[in-house]
Amino acid sequence: MSAQRMPTREGVLLAAERVAAILPPTPLLPLEIGGVQLWAKAEVLQPIGAFKIRGAWHRLSALSDEERTRGVVGVSSGNHAQGVAWAARRLGIAATIVMPTDAPRTKLDATRALGADVVLYDRPGGEDRDEVAARLVAESGATLVHAFADPWVIEGQGSAGIEIMAQLGHAPSRIVACCGGGGLAAGLALACPDSAVVPVEPEGWDMVGRAMAAGEVVHVGPNPPATICDALQPPATRPVNLAVLRGRAEPGVTVTDEEVRAAQRFAFRHLHLVVEPGGAAALAAALAGKVPLDGDTVVMLTGGNVDPAAYAATISAG
Amino acid sequence: MSAQRMPTREGVLLAAERVAAILPPTPLLPLEIGGVQLWAKAEVLQPIGAFKIRGAWHRLSALSDEERTRGVVGVSSGNHAQGVAWAARRLGIAATIVMPTDAPRTKLDATRALGADVVLYDRPGGEDRDEVAARLVAESGATLVHAFADPWVIEGQGSAGIEIMAQLGHAPSRIVACCGGGGLAAGLALACPDSAVVPVEPEGWDMVGRAMAAGEVVHVGPNPPATICDALQPPATRPVNLAVLRGRAEPGVTVTDEEVRAAQRFAFRHLHLVVEPGGAAALAAALAGKVPLDGDTVVMLTGGNVDPAAYAATISAG
Repeated sequence: MSAQRMPTREGVLLAAERVAAILPPTPLLPLEIGGVQLWAKAEVLQPIGAFKIRGAWHRLSALSDEERTRGVVGVSSGNHAQGVAWAARRLGIAATIVMPTDAPRTKLDATRALGADVVLYDRPGGEDRDEVAARLVAESGATLVHAFADPWVIEGQGSAGIEIMAQLGHAPSRIVACCGGGGLAAGLALACPDSAVVPVEPEGWDMVGRAMAAGEVVHVGPNPPATICDALQPPATRPVNLAVLRGRAEPGVTVTDEEVRAAQRFAFRHLHLVVEPGGAAALAAALAGKVPLDGDTVVMLTGGNVDPAAYAATISAG
Repeated sequence: MSAQRMPTREGVLLAAERVAAILPPTPLLPLEIGGVQLWAKAEVLQPIGAFKIRGAWHRLSALSDEERTRGVVGVSSGNHAQGVAWAARRLGIAATIVMPTDAPRTKLDATRALGADVVLYDRPGGEDRDEVAARLVAESGATLVHAFADPWVIEGQGSAGIEIMAQLGHAPSRIVACCGGGGLAAGLALACPDSAVVPVEPEGWDMVGRAMAAGEVVHVGPNPPATICDALQPPATRPVNLAVLRGRAEPGVTVTDEEVRAAQRFAFRHLHLVVEPGGAAALAAALAGKVPLDGDTVVMLTGGNVDPAAYAATISAG
């Protein structure tokens, strides 16, 4: 990608206005863990079942009329796909989304149902999704809407932080956020300058944590471990995310598949919310005692798009 | 029961104030059915996972200090049980709840976890729960908190209607409500005098609909059909509910188990909410085309307490 502007707090505030104009705030639900009363931000209640609608809406809203006629291309395991497709349909923009062949069926179906063209790539086989997207962009002149390394997308995700502050009446002490490439974490860091931001990544896929430790972008190795968090498997974070998060976020929190499943069961039983594996990573870290909790801590429940069979197996195993 | 006062709209407004003082409004979520954009009131997001917390809180808050020392007795298949137990714990009142032996495990566990004493009765065997409760009340001098035939309970449930009007900015055209004994439906009818109220009952358990048609309380027959809606199996409605609902509610809507399961799957996939069978009855009627829908229609999602195995089977069958 060419040089790009940096996301700003002013951009987050503008995004929060744009988002508030079309989407009601998602509820901040009370939650008790180990005797501590804290909060869960229920992004699974967004129309597409995930926070990704925020960044996609802010990005597509900012396109010029001329850019809109050329369409957009997104790259996504499924939730950003739905966000871009949703925003594109609403704005009358053609959307093409590059998705992995092993994306959950429910995410593929929902993206197509929103009217987007889906182009599949072979993630398990190591095909580079960014190359596929770059080819599509070169052919069509469409605007690439990256899932996390885009200043508008980062600012849009940050709108969740502005909502949280309005709902709490003050800044949270700490926001625990499921983390893939670092778009949400970066947006929250900009939105809530006085709050700790704790990205939570799947074991073996902690590309943001490793980048923060190394001071540079780190790519996942050739044989990364399996994870049930299909939404949190970016091959690497990007410089724009790292630049925002360095010195701002608390690195190093990872969760196992079993911790994630336990969090999904907790959300089923106590919150009556359907949460997908990647959307439960932050809650998993909180339940596993991996982050400090207090009455002003907010745990992000970032997505709820999960295939029924996988979800049935998870809740039945409890 | 002895003569009791009638519930009033003023009582509903007081209940709405009392509820708002301790519980945030549950969200009114956008919902699309057959191209119509309408609303779902997500009562599954209450701390106990059901609207019953409203009536229980209003009833117990109204007890005198002397009444509080003698405790309360509730009769419930599980959600009213949790509502009474939650309110009692918060107010420091001893609670005993009469529950059926075949109540869902998750409801029995949750009621006990809230500190209530649970006394079981043999519902499948035809034991009369009201007799069990009357004996407990005679022994202890406790106050009986009926699940639906109590003016405070009815007023408390009606607080949901006051919230809906504030959230919509006007009265809904129609509120579609899951219906057991008619406590919620009666409360909503009082809360929203300009709105149609449509109680939805399980096939074979339409004791409110039959009472409205007959003009008097009707008891379910000796061999009622099975229903998966464990929360919607009262043996009969009561005069206080019938008095409020006659001429106010639209009777006659019933749903099958299969329609209820389809609604649970819809809520899983599109709303990311866990809804129990009885809590999905209103949505089932809407999805089955059994009630007219428009942009000001509200469908109540009344409860989300369901055993994991039963829920897993339902979503897997879709």
